[in-house]
This record gives sequence, structure tokens and C-alpha cells, in this order.
Amino acid sequence: MNSTQHDISSTENLARRQHGQDVLYRIDGDQGGAVIDSLADINPAMGHHIAAFAFGDVYDRPGLDARSRQLVTLGVLTALGGCEPQLKVHVGAALNVGITREEIAEVMLHAAVYCGFPKALNATFAAREVYTSLDQPQDPTVNAADRR
Amino acid sequence: MNSTQHDISSTENLARRQHGQDVLYRIDGDQGGAVIDSLADINPAMGHHIAAFAFGDVYDRPGLDARSRQLVTLGVLTALGGCEPQLKVHVGAALNVGITREEIAEVMLHAAVYCGFPKALNATFAAREVYTSLDQPQDPTVNAADRR
Amino acid sequence: MNSTQHDISSTENLARRQHGQDVLYRIDGDQGGAVIDSLADINPAMGHHIAAFAFGDVYDRPGLDARSRQLVTLGVLTALGGCEPQLKVHVGAALNVGITREEIAEVMLHAAVYCGFPKALNATFAAREVYTSLDQPQDPTVNAADRR
Amino acid sequence: MNSTQHDISSTENLARRQHGQDVLYRIDGDQGGAVIDSLADINPAMGHHIAAFAFGDVYDRPGLDARSRQLVTLGVLTALGGCEPQLKVHVGAALNVGITREEIAEVMLHAAVYCGFPKALNATFAAREVYTSLDQPQDPTVNAADRR
Amino acid sequence: MNSTQHDISSTENLARRQHGQDVLYRIDGDQGGAVIDSLADINPAMGHHIAAFAFGDVYDRPGLDARSRQLVTLGVLTALGGCEPQLKVHVGAALNVGITREEIAEVMLHAAVYCGFPKALNATFAAREVYTSLDQPQDPTVNAADRR
Amino acid sequence: MNSTQHDISSTENLARRQHGQDVLYRIDGDQGGAVIDSLADINPAMGHHIAAFAFGDVYDRPGLDARSRQLVTLGVLTALGGCEPQLKVHVGAALNVGITREEIAEVMLHAAVYCGFPKALNATFAAREVYTSLDQPQDPTVNAADRR
Repeated sequence: MNSTQHDISSTENLARRQHGQDVLYRIDGDQGGAVIDSLADINPAMGHHIAAFAFGDVYDRPGLDARSRQLVTLGVLTALGGCEPQLKVHVGAALNVGITREEIAEVMLHAAVYCGFPKALNATFAAREVYTSLDQPQDPTVNAADRR
Repeated sequence: MNSTQHDISSTENLARRQHGQDVLYRIDGDQGGAVIDSLADINPAMGHHIAAFAFGDVYDRPGLDARSRQLVTLGVLTALGGCEPQLKVHVGAALNVGITREEIAEVMLHAAVYCGFPKALNATFAAREVYTSLDQPQDPTVNAADRR
Repeated sequence: MNSTQHDISSTENLARRQHGQDVLYRIDGDQGGAVIDSLADINPAMGHHIAAFAFGDVYDRPGLDARSRQLVTLGVLTALGGCEPQLKVHVGAALNVGITREEIAEVMLHAAVYCGFPKALNATFAAREVYTSLDQPQDPTVNAADRR
Repeated sequence: MNSTQHDISSTENLARRQHGQDVLYRIDGDQGGAVIDSLADINPAMGHHIAAFAFGDVYDRPGLDARSRQLVTLGVLTALGGCEPQLKVHVGAALNVGITREEIAEVMLHAAVYCGFPKALNATFAAREVYTSLDQPQDPTVNAADRR
Repeated sequence: MNSTQHDISSTENLARRQHGQDVLYRIDGDQGGAVIDSLADINPAMGHHIAAFAFGDVYDRPGLDARSRQLVTLGVLTALGGCEPQLKVHVGAALNVGITREEIAEVMLHAAVYCGFPKALNATFAAREVYTSLDQPQDPTVNAADRR
Repeated sequence: MNSTQHDISSTENLARRQHGQDVLYRIDGDQGGAVIDSLADINPAMGHHIAAFAFGDVYDRPGLDARSRQLVTLGVLTALGGCEPQLKVHVGAALNVGITREEIAEVMLHAAVYCGFPKALNATFAAREVYTSLDQPQDPTVNAADRR
């Protein structure tokens, strides 16, 4: 694997991507594959690297538990600002790994001290959209990828 | 407490600040009071609100454990960028609440996925400065506030 | 006030929040209470601290007049980016404290020098939405909190 | 030109603006004038300086070719975050100066390394909106300025 | 002025730059020219546009007083983060236009609500460096441009 | 490669890292390996992924030439702010792939339009440090990793 390492269709990279997608599914549930699929037409390499690198290489590392990873992710995404679509996916992932809605509220209040109330409010309202969606009967026609 | 609520020297606010400083000491150790002290000449109200609001009102809330709060803080500070002085204080606080150096390294690698490698590198090198300082015999003349 | 300082339902904190809401109403008009109300279900502590801390403790301080505070707020929100909902509330507040639409346009052109034209354009178009809303007959069914 | 240099209606500034608009049209096509026009009612000085300064003074400088300028612009706008309206205009401009859709996808994957995947995803989906619009029969009633 | 509008050495642009430098001197004092001079070897066009555009075209506009402009600038620079060198110049300019040290402290506390305490602390410590320098006998060998 | 994909010491990952380091050396020269080495003690996994992912997987992709990649990188790093150490490495890399100092000056002036003059000034002064270092006799004791 060297001069063709960048080839996302090599046998080796297909295996790496598949493993990453498995991790992604475990954390994000059904939305996982949909995000990657949504990139297939416009930026398949980005989809590959989100699966193979972000989830297969990094998220799956044993040195930090999933709860801790999601707490860091919520902190980063709240602070960046303008990443509400990604924040909504990761609020869902946070619930999946056992972080409660009450804890998510505390995360965002805590973040407000360090990145200010406006970004913390945006994050809070993004979380509310996730909860509203979860509390309603699922609409199978909604494209999960739109929430990535 | 109404028209004088903003008076940081009122009996009530002195009690609030004292409680916040107790929380700050518990998390940050000796550096805690030094930060507040360093603001005494230039912005005492900011020092007051860091103690009374950030630590007394928010950090001390029971809905999220200290480990989780520090993980969020590390995520926010890494993502903001340019906040290495504060990041160093909070790397120290992370160690104080039981997060290991190995976990902090994982936090920063994980953050790199979401905020990019340059900010994650800055955070990593800030952490190294903290470890270098901790691993050397303490110099009692260093002003802890400079690291806030 | 110490081990229960974080309790937002204590008599003392209810008084602090009430005072902050009075300041918030004075600056933001009818929208003030709606923002706090909108957080009641999802993050009441954030609503509390926006009222009690941001408005009761900080905004109400006598060391800087309301016009100056709104100019700083417009500068910060324009520079942060992605905070258009908050910017719209504060454009309204700026008008309330006597800053004119022409001055707000100058603020955003001035900010463009320091944070670039794209963020200044976003701020300008956010302001236009506020003016469009103000120049039309009020619709009492609009939830003011959505604009926070 | 001194004490009246700031007068955007002076003969000299009208000539500067006109030249800048010519450059803007050359890069952005029909959308160019629409952006400036959209600012006429709310911030005409901002429209003037986008034309006269950003395009007439800077973009037109011979020291860097148009392709290179658009690559820098895409990098800056992706990294800033929250500037999707401007990003869409500049994706269109990138196509106009000969950068391909495949290269734009590479630009955004490359940017992900330095500013993280969430902002790169936002940029990617903004680009898709541009392509979707271009691939459909043009609707002459769409206000190009909304895409600035 | 059209196909040569970008030529910063044209008679017209020299006049525009000279006027901008006059405005810059009026606001920033002796440091003004030094900033432009410091760019002469590496990016003279940037120096030109800071003088001609930022100060001659924008700052000098009559629609917003100098005090208001500096308040916006302090808000923007505090929120951006990482711009301490520029913040120090503008703290000096704020003092020049009559904003007091006490007001600057309030500006930064106020900004903390919207962009978080870490950036407000960085701004506060940048201001302290300015005051420390002002309160000591002037060292004529210090290159003012280093503080831009 | 699946359950052990995250193991940076596997034969496969060592090969991926080695290839990435080759790409890194080709772009950054002698500084390349030093950056990775500097992470060996504190965050070896971050060093691995900068080599294997950022350079081996992404930079080496054939869809965008090295000149274009560096222009995007300069745009992103200038806009992020606070990433001067990384910017200096990439100014060096830009020179290595044939971008001239004059073009780099244009890049930064161009970026100023979109992200404001303060960040563009920081980038300009970072570039000057690179040039100053290049124009002096090399000091072999300087740790290149400090500039990453």
C-alpha cells in the first residue's frame, strides 16, 4: 500500500471503509450509512474518509470511551458554530452512548461559559430539534443524511 | 438583591464569590485563586464572575460530573483556538479530576477530526508545556495566573 | 448562599432572575421574556443565567452605557458568525437604545474591515430581516423566542 | 480626493465602483450586479466597497491569477464557517474561472484536514446546491443576490 | 482610473493612501505610520489598503463617531481571538478617542457573555500590556509596528 | 484490517505511515519528519494520522495539484487564526511547490477581503518570520517541529 494508498476503491481501503461504517452504525444508528451515501455523488472520497479515518481509525481507538468522545465532540461542535447539522447527528449519537438529555443540557450550559451564550443557544435549539423528531412517530421518508 | 445586584462588593456577592472560589480551588488547585487575584487590578468584576458565576453557579451544578465537564471544556478550548493559556489551566484541572495524560492525548486526536489538525496540534503542545512543568521541581515564583 | 448557590429555584436566585428579566425587558422589549420562556422546557438553567447573570449581573452594571454595550454586542456577534438569530434580537435592542438603522449599517461596514465582508454581509441581511418585520404590521402569533 | 474620499457618490468613486463591478461581472457572471443591487437599500456603502475595493482594487491585481484567488477564497470561506451564502457565489465563480467540480470536491476534502470535517461537509452541501441549480433549467425569477 | 485602479503607486492612489494615513495618525497616534511602514518590505499593497481603504474610505465616514467605531472594533477583535497584536493597537486607539480604562474593562466583561471568558481574558491581558507600557517611561527604540 | 485497524503499529499502518511521511518530506522538506518525531512522546497517534491520513491518503490524491492544495491550505490557516506555527510550515511548503513570495503576499491581501485585515496581518508577519529564517545562514540546532 503506497503509490495506490490514496485509491479509495482498493481492496484494502474498501475493508477499512467497511470497518469504519460498522463503527459509525454502532454509534449513530441508521443515520450512519445515510451520511456516507449522501456523499456518494458529490464527494465519495470525503465519505470514505469519514468512515475509514474518522470512525475506523480514530473513534474506534480503545484509549477513550464512547461517552467521553461524544462529550468532546459536543464541546467542539458547539464552539465551532455553524455546525448545527453535524451537532444534531452527534446529539443523537450522545443519546445512543448513554448521555441523557439532562446531561446534554448541562453540557451546553457549561460550554456557554467558555464560548458564550449565543453558540450555546444555537446548540440547545439544535438539540431540541433532535428531541422533537425523536418524540414524534418516525417518518421513514426523511433522509437521515440531511441531518449530518 | 435587585438594583444593587451588580455590586460585586455586596455581602451577598462576596458570599457567592467565596463559594465560587472554593469550587475553583477544588478543581484547579493552587492556581485557582491566583487567576482571580491577577484580575484584581485590571478587571475585578471579571474575576468575580469567573468565580461566582462560572464556578459557583455553573461548574458546581450536580447534573454533570467533573470529568465530563473537563472533557467538554477541553473540546471547546481546542476548537476555539488561540486560548492556549486557558487550555493549559484546564489540562491541569483535567488531571486533577482523574483524566489521564493518555486520555487527554485521545481527546485532542478526537477533536482533530472535528476542528482540524492545526488546532489539535496547538492543544497538544499546550498540554506538553503543562506536563513539562509538572515533571520538573516546582518553581514557587511562577505566577500561576499567567497560565490562565 | 453556598452549597445551594447553584439551585436556580432558591428564593435568592428567583429574585436575581426576576431582576435580570426586568433589565432584559427594558432592553429587548416584549421579546425578552419570550426567550427565557422558550428555554423553560429544554434548558431552564440556561434561561436563568441569561436573565440573572447576563442581564442582571453584567448588562446592568453602571460602568458602560447601553448604547456602548449594544455596539460591542453587534461587533462580537458579527465576528462570531453563525449567530444570526441572536444578532437579530440585538439589532432590535440596538434600535431600542437609540442606535439608528444608518448607524447599524456603518457598524457592519466597519466590522467588515476587521472580520471580512462575508460575515458583515450575513449581519447586514439579518438586520434587514429585522427591519422588514418591524415595517410590517405586527403578527402577534410570531414566537419572539425564535429570533433569539 | 481627501476630505471627500469617503463620499461614495463622488465622480472618482463612481468610476472606481464601475470598474470594480466590471471585474465582479467577469468573475461572477450575472450574479455580480445583483449582489451590489441587493445592498442598495440597506447598506449602499458596503455594496460600493465590495465592488470598488474587493474587486476593483484587490481581485484585479495582476500578482495572482483568478484560479489561485478562487482557491484561496474557497479555503477561507470553508474555514470561516457560517458563510454558505457567500461560498455558493464563489463556487459559481470557481467554475467560471475553470476550476472543475472534481477539483472543488478535492478542495473541500483537503480543507477538512485543516478545519475539520463538519465545516467541509457544510461546504460540500453548499456546492451541491449550486450544482443542482446549474443542472436545472434556469428560473429567471430567482434573485441572484440571495445567493451572495 | 480603471485598468490601473489596482496600481497603488498611481497619483490617485498615493493621494488616497496619504489621506488614509492622516486618519490613521489621528486615531492611533505615532504608531499609525509605523504599521504601514512595517509592511513596506513584505506586503506594501496590504499597507496601502489598510491606510487608503480601512482608514481613508471607511473609518473616516461621518455616519458613526470614533468612540462607537472603537467599541465595535474591540468587540470584533475580542471575539475573533488570536488578534492580540491588533487588539493592543486598538486599545491604544480607544484611549485616544476618549474611552476610559474602566470602560474597556466593562467592554471585555460584556463581551465575555457573548464570546466566552477565555477570549475575554486574553483581551484583558492584552489591554494590561498596553497600560503597563503607557505607565512606564517611553522607550523610543520600541518598534510600534510590532504591536499592530 | 478491521478490529485492529486502529492499531498504529500494525504492519499495514506502518506502511501507510511510511508512505505518508514520504509525501510529507516531498512537500515540506526536512521539517517533515521532525514534526512527526516531535509528537512521538506525547501523541504518537496524532503523528501517525498526520502522516498516514493527511499526507498519504489526502495530499497525495491526484485530483488537485500541489500548488492548488497549498493555496487552499494558506487560505484555511489564515482564516482560522491562531495557527501561526502551522502557517509557517505551510508557507515553507508553498515555496517548495513553486508559489513565490510575491504570490503569498497576494494570497494574504486577497484573504483579508474575506476574513479581515487582522488575521491577514498575522499571516503576513508569520510569513516574514519564515523568510527571515530562510535568508539567514541555517542554524542546525533549531527544532523544525516547533514551527509545525
